[in-house]
Amino acid sequence: MYSDLWIEEKFKDFLGLKLKVEKVLFSGKSDFQTVDVVETKGHGKMLLNDGLIMVTERDEFAYHDMISHVPLFVHPNPKNVLIIGGGDGGTAREVIRHSSVEKCVMVEIDPMVVEACKQYIPQTSCALDDPKIELIIGDGVKYAKECQQQFDVIIIDSTDPIGPAQPLFGAGFYTDVYNCLTDDGIVVSQGESSWYALDIQQSLLKVLNTQFPKTFLYSFSNLTYPGGLWSFTFASKGLNPIKDFEPQRVTDSGLVFDYYNKEIHNACFALPNFVRKGLDGLIENG
Amino acid sequence: MYSDLWIEEKFKDFLGLKLKVEKVLFSGKSDFQTVDVVETKGHGKMLLNDGLIMVTERDEFAYHDMISHVPLFVHPNPKNVLIIGGGDGGTAREVIRHSSVEKCVMVEIDPMVVEACKQYIPQTSCALDDPKIELIIGDGVKYAKECQQQFDVIIIDSTDPIGPAQPLFGAGFYTDVYNCLTDDGIVVSQGESSWYALDIQQSLLKVLNTQFPKTFLYSFSNLTYPGGLWSFTFASKGLNPIKDFEPQRVTDSGLVFDYYNKEIHNACFALPNFVRKGLDGLIENG
Repeated sequence: MYSDLWIEEKFKDFLGLKLKVEKVLFSGKSDFQTVDVVETKGHGKMLLNDGLIMVTERDEFAYHDMISHVPLFVHPNPKNVLIIGGGDGGTAREVIRHSSVEKCVMVEIDPMVVEACKQYIPQTSCALDDPKIELIIGDGVKYAKECQQQFDVIIIDSTDPIGPAQPLFGAGFYTDVYNCLTDDGIVVSQGESSWYALDIQQSLLKVLNTQFPKTFLYSFSNLTYPGGLWSFTFASKGLNPIKDFEPQRVTDSGLVFDYYNKEIHNACFALPNFVRKGLDGLIENG
Repeated sequence: MYSDLWIEEKFKDFLGLKLKVEKVLFSGKSDFQTVDVVETKGHGKMLLNDGLIMVTERDEFAYHDMISHVPLFVHPNPKNVLIIGGGDGGTAREVIRHSSVEKCVMVEIDPMVVEACKQYIPQTSCALDDPKIELIIGDGVKYAKECQQQFDVIIIDSTDPIGPAQPLFGAGFYTDVYNCLTDDGIVVSQGESSWYALDIQQSLLKVLNTQFPKTFLYSFSNLTYPGGLWSFTFASKGLNPIKDFEPQRVTDSGLVFDYYNKEIHNACFALPNFVRKGLDGLIENG
């Protein structure tokens, strides 16, 4: 069909990642961004927003395991979970595997992302019709501001702080997130790269520090985000993700994961010295 | 000088990594491979052998910290260290920072790599004239076979198992390595990617298992090797890299690193479930 089709994601003006494409499955332009789903060679199906790689079938389990299971195994009894973003469905899929979770509200701004993933990437979107999931198409910032409910765990599964996700990195948003959390609540946020975006990590952690008594950063390995090593921030009203983690709960859950395990849980909070130095005073790790 | 110069490293037929190049500093063809040193935008100077990225100034500390300090802080008193490969000098630079090390023999097959790095990448090659380092230009396989000495730690700082480094992944070589080690000796080897080359990791670990009672795999984050997550194998005649590691020795050493620290030491042996599953029966981790 195509002789030699590749997608290239440029990062700044010095780095490019190219992936071989077999077939373009979907291309659309929503009110917020361009949305593409392609079949790659070597990485399965892949979602791109505004030309940036969001998810590939080959490695999505790493991201979705780590954004969900770390907070859900720290909170002693997570019943109500809120996801802001996460339109591909992978985070919600992992959240509802926890038997304690009664309700998972997911607020995604762009219906085209959800529809494209429902149609073309069932691997991530397969759980979106589960009765435990309440999918709201709307603005997560507005939702958090007006929210009357409280959640045990809030997951900010956002894109980069450009385009529609920009307000999700701001101070006003996190004031509202704080107010939407129960007294032992946890918020985990997509936290960019320690190698290439330490400035964004610093800025996000400064915002979190103004609201939350405890802030941490943890990392995992990803194939398609610039630099490979990717991070989530962890902020809480009191829970410590290492000291308050009971490894036995992972075993007792009976759940089996492709990436996450109890050793990884502790290990992911160990940061290389250059990261510690860059985030000095902003995190409690180590 | 050049309007828009990029180097692209292809991996298999589905992945490409592109780095912006400002200037080509050196290009040569040795008896073993092509050798290039370029000044990049964003990653400092970069060495390539046969077009494959070996080292960039931006991230080389991660690789060199992790290949050296993990075994050198496990062995209780490493005096004699052998490096096979490592022509850029970064590993030797880190090894001799340990005050216990009296002698570091380095056997590099390709003099052009050493000379190019001496001239253009002093960041890695700066220690090569240190009197503790004995640099031998020669074949590491032959050296190990004929070696009359014994070493406390041997580091196989090789390129991929294609081209000149291929014999460094074979059973015969590791029989000789075993014989070159003291009774509490450790060998650490460049161990490829768990994401993209689990088959090579399996094959190398099978070879190590035939010789060594203890085999482990540990990982770190790298910017320019395919997949980002990169590994070293750890094999020993008895020492366990987690149980026999005394974190206090890192503090007592007074050494400060950009990547390695005592929390990273333990954390790097925690492997995601897909890696554990792929290496089941071949490693002791976890």
